[in-house]
Amino acid sequence: MRRVSIFGATGSIGVQTVELMRHAGGAEAFHTVALTGGRNVAVLADMARELRAEVAVTAHDDCLPALRALLVGSGIEAASGTQALLEAADRPADWIMSAIVGAAGLAPGFRALRHGTTLALANKESLVTAGPLLMAEAARHGARILPVDSEHSAIFQALVGEDLATVERVIVTASGGALRDWPLERLAEATVEQALAHPNWAMGARITIDSASMFNKALEVIEAREFFDLAPDQIEVVIHPESIIHSMVGFRDGAVMAHLGAPDMRHAIGYALNWPKRAALPVARLDFSTLTQLTFRPPCEARYPALRLARQVMAARGRAGAVFNAAKEVALDRFMAGGLRFTQMAEVVEASLHDVAQGVGLEIAPQSLEEVLAADQIGRQAALAAAERIAG
Amino acid sequence: MRRVSIFGATGSIGVQTVELMRHAGGAEAFHTVALTGGRNVAVLADMARELRAEVAVTAHDDCLPALRALLVGSGIEAASGTQALLEAADRPADWIMSAIVGAAGLAPGFRALRHGTTLALANKESLVTAGPLLMAEAARHGARILPVDSEHSAIFQALVGEDLATVERVIVTASGGALRDWPLERLAEATVEQALAHPNWAMGARITIDSASMFNKALEVIEAREFFDLAPDQIEVVIHPESIIHSMVGFRDGAVMAHLGAPDMRHAIGYALNWPKRAALPVARLDFSTLTQLTFRPPCEARYPALRLARQVMAARGRAGAVFNAAKEVALDRFMAGGLRFTQMAEVVEASLHDVAQGVGLEIAPQSLEEVLAADQIGRQAALAAAERIAG
Repeated sequence: MRRVSIFGATGSIGVQTVELMRHAGGAEAFHTVALTGGRNVAVLADMARELRAEVAVTAHDDCLPALRALLVGSGIEAASGTQALLEAADRPADWIMSAIVGAAGLAPGFRALRHGTTLALANKESLVTAGPLLMAEAARHGARILPVDSEHSAIFQALVGEDLATVERVIVTASGGALRDWPLERLAEATVEQALAHPNWAMGARITIDSASMFNKALEVIEAREFFDLAPDQIEVVIHPESIIHSMVGFRDGAVMAHLGAPDMRHAIGYALNWPKRAALPVARLDFSTLTQLTFRPPCEARYPALRLARQVMAARGRAGAVFNAAKEVALDRFMAGGLRFTQMAEVVEASLHDVAQGVGLEIAPQSLEEVLAADQIGRQAALAAAERIAG
Repeated sequence: MRRVSIFGATGSIGVQTVELMRHAGGAEAFHTVALTGGRNVAVLADMARELRAEVAVTAHDDCLPALRALLVGSGIEAASGTQALLEAADRPADWIMSAIVGAAGLAPGFRALRHGTTLALANKESLVTAGPLLMAEAARHGARILPVDSEHSAIFQALVGEDLATVERVIVTASGGALRDWPLERLAEATVEQALAHPNWAMGARITIDSASMFNKALEVIEAREFFDLAPDQIEVVIHPESIIHSMVGFRDGAVMAHLGAPDMRHAIGYALNWPKRAALPVARLDFSTLTQLTFRPPCEARYPALRLARQVMAARGRAGAVFNAAKEVALDRFMAGGLRFTQMAEVVEASLHDVAQGVGLEIAPQSLEEVLAADQIGRQAALAAAERIAG
């Protein structure tokens, strides 16, 4: 039986992963090694009992007593804290889902790669902040990384059986987010609620706002560059409001292969869960008799400065990804707390990249997880200073 | 050097095949074995000289002296007639293009399969009239058949590296042809010129009219069933007026993989020519910043009775494909000669299927090329009688 662990089991991706495991037979079909979560220990304990996990880990030590109480009599171990997360990643498994959001999500994935475990990667920060390091680690240990994002899964699926040397470009589709049809001059007034009204995808709050600003797409572009070893100018972004085409690959013979499906993260999660097979998934089928139309438009630079910044990051590389991601996190925090306007998020990120470039520089690429986290801190400090300045 | 022959070198597909060979280096890149054509011996001789073919064959004995004269001093053999075509197919080659239109195109392909030669199949009649026979022949000799039609090439490309057992459905796209937006009640008045005004594809006259009536799509649906070993209800047809998505495959995980490209036959020809590699092709690249939209609509049964007849043919199988194809050819001849209305073509084909079913029956599947040709004759006779009746 396949041994599976889920890091970030109680988040959006984790819950859907568990749902697909349930659909495929649950504890009868998978040997669940570790499930980890945050403060929602009730859900974590329920999942652990249902899947008969070896261990359930909460990131927060103060949640451990509650988790322990919920698991009494189940025979499932309970643990907490950063060290327990790493130990969970050390437990032998065939497949782990890395879905802890933020910089905290990096370490378990790195640890699992060291054991040659197949890593389903939903944590965006891993490739953005430490792409070359992560890919090298996977190569060193013969571990496979599988993308868990609709766009990268689409590209990955379009590449099945194909020779990477024949790839001319990838075309990453973007919904354009909640504010895509707003007049440009009103963007600065957009509230958190308005940025949260995503037209197609049901996702967490942070990623939904990142979708409206296209910082999410910027991260995906950087990820695609690292994951598929592309040159920056091989990556195009097109707005496709219906979110039916999840992304495309253009080959040197002019063929463009696309992955289409309903906007449902279970496509990407299920593909990673079952790879290299395709198993039946409980997702809606596209009905071409009612689909009517798929539309496309080029992304407007003025509306989405994040895309321009992504190009800057790809050109600089080094620690630029870590700085970019950290500055984006700080700016997003501030926006959600009411301390920045929607359009000021990009200003903060741009200023952070500029200030770090002028200061310690962006050139030096992190050579370890510690150096990634150090670069993250540099980005955060720069962004905090920039945010103070810009918010005025 | 790869040994290549082209049957039907002077037709639309043949000319484009030669063009792609020229683009890839011509006589420096390919050893051309045989080139065959019809009455256009000047073009045939030019091609043979350019590609330094071993032999050039015209289907017509009365054209042989002219061909011979054109090849004087070139060292290229000249030949004519059916027997010479078969002998050309017996010459050792690694890849042959079967692009002779009509029932006459079957024999060289069958012959080449017997030698284990990879068969690029543009001749539609082969799979429609003799699908099971052809596929069995290929399997027996370990020969590979490659589709040369935008739709089947798209499906074939979407299946690269995939497990056929995971295919849920294929979605064949159709432009809808020149008359797709005509009022239904005016279809009967459509002239040959009007049916020839295809919105997207530049093709021969017969296939362009078959596109307007969707007899071409009906043939493709039957071909897809045979080539990909699908159940009839796994095949959907959708009208996609832009002809950018060339067809799609739906898998059991809900993923739909699509091939997109400009409406250009060189996509499919080039893919077959270079398979299993993708080589650079001189086709236009899709520009998603200007593409704007792709639209879809379900095909109207009343407008396109050919699709309903295709379902009948797939249900009956046996000799139904041969009868259907032959009757369609007769009906098309009559329409082009002014002896049938546009809408009467389907009536003739439907009556032919009905009459043969009531007479000798549709059940018996041809077991040899001779039996395929006999079934073709049965279809032609039935269609000639039906056409007399229906034209009144």
